[in-house]
Amino acid sequence: MNNRPIGVFDSGLGGLTVLKEIMKITPNENIVYFGDTARVPYGPRSKETIIKYTFQAIDFLISKNVKAIVIACNTATARALKEANEKYDIPILGVIEAGARTAVYTTKNKVVGIIGTDGTIRSKAYNAEISKLDPEIKIVDKSCPLFVPIVEEGWANTDIASLTAKRYLDDLMKEGIDSLVLGCTHYPLLKKTIGEIVGEKVTLVNPAKETAKDLKRILDENDMLRGDIGEEPKYEYYVSDIPEKFAAIAEEFLKKEIDDIKNVRI
Amino acid sequence: MNNRPIGVFDSGLGGLTVLKEIMKITPNENIVYFGDTARVPYGPRSKETIIKYTFQAIDFLISKNVKAIVIACNTATARALKEANEKYDIPILGVIEAGARTAVYTTKNKVVGIIGTDGTIRSKAYNAEISKLDPEIKIVDKSCPLFVPIVEEGWANTDIASLTAKRYLDDLMKEGIDSLVLGCTHYPLLKKTIGEIVGEKVTLVNPAKETAKDLKRILDENDMLRGDIGEEPKYEYYVSDIPEKFAAIAEEFLKKEIDDIKNVRI
Repeated sequence: MNNRPIGVFDSGLGGLTVLKEIMKITPNENIVYFGDTARVPYGPRSKETIIKYTFQAIDFLISKNVKAIVIACNTATARALKEANEKYDIPILGVIEAGARTAVYTTKNKVVGIIGTDGTIRSKAYNAEISKLDPEIKIVDKSCPLFVPIVEEGWANTDIASLTAKRYLDDLMKEGIDSLVLGCTHYPLLKKTIGEIVGEKVTLVNPAKETAKDLKRILDENDMLRGDIGEEPKYEYYVSDIPEKFAAIAEEFLKKEIDDIKNVRI
Repeated sequence: MNNRPIGVFDSGLGGLTVLKEIMKITPNENIVYFGDTARVPYGPRSKETIIKYTFQAIDFLISKNVKAIVIACNTATARALKEANEKYDIPILGVIEAGARTAVYTTKNKVVGIIGTDGTIRSKAYNAEISKLDPEIKIVDKSCPLFVPIVEEGWANTDIASLTAKRYLDDLMKEGIDSLVLGCTHYPLLKKTIGEIVGEKVTLVNPAKETAKDLKRILDENDMLRGDIGEEPKYEYYVSDIPEKFAAIAEEFLKKEIDDIKNVRI
């Protein structure tokens, strides 16, 4: 048994969907979440800056004695995961690899859709990972810049969300995708709306869920799981700035009440 | 007659709506536009960073021999206009003062609405400017984070835009506003959609237009207008990064073809 917490890091709030899956799949683990809300979004920043911010976040989590870290942010994973694994000794996972691998498993007709923010789509990180595993897969990608603000307004299940999803996904449907990677941590909150647009024949791949499964496997293999010791796990939340709507959005993401949010300067 | 160009600066593309009004109101002027597209958006950045970026942009425009500068960006105006005017000798105008002054003139019932990005609304810059002119005016403000991506997708006149505007503006209408400041440079592109929601009794105040009028007056008073010399004015566009959709969006903003876009490192 290993009491040390898991560290989860995101540029803001989106990583809470990953946190939620980790809580579900490894319900006994203590967790420290850090959201770099003062410097969100990372998308438009340079690779050097993103590496610097990511290392600062990792240093902060290590100061909290974490045993493993999940970079629950597509941009930081695409730009800084490799460098982080070269620098640090504890296991550090990103969200892209698990999502890509799952899409390769689920697709039958070898036509996979990827949606994400402008930055993630331009980075082609999912495309590269999928093509490495199966170069025959045809990838259709599309950036969906309205989805994040729609989720953050709490409008995920409105007519605005439906109409927007229809507009974004029409082209992907015409290409005949049978799997769709939700390549942004906010998007699992749109799962119901997106599912209604693409229909049951398209499998939605949630990288958050797959990453949580990977994490559990790695902890298990290294004998690092906390196990059920009859004591509730502890969840701590740190943010570099408390946005106005933080609590409301966070509770929408996690579907549970959040207390113990601390402000930290890194 | 003064052949030197006017400099127009924005963090990205939004300032093109201001540029459009300047072209209309002073059609003989040569203009140099600089969009800091590599570092957009300024909204989440610190005051110090925004001042640094703004000074860099001004230095660049001065190197192009401009006779006056318009900071066509609400964030940069709110955070750096005062500092810029303390540092530089040429006339430098922002977009907020003219918009606020016009709202004070147009309102009859003294209830004014302000819409803008999260950053602009949180800065309370329009509120402060309006209250300085008439402390009796009641201000109802609302951030509308979906409007910028809607405009940038080219969706300004869709059902998505209408439904979104209705949701954002309902509360302001209930408060009985008779004037509405479009406090973000992207919003004039939503004028038709917003106008349909708020109806004819609400005056839409476009700070871009008012700023262009101020610029003309200042140039006139200082004997700096170019005048009609029977020679087409020259328009030059510089950006710090060429975004994928730059040309398409820019032509949508300006309603004219754009050539001569140069990339510049500042």
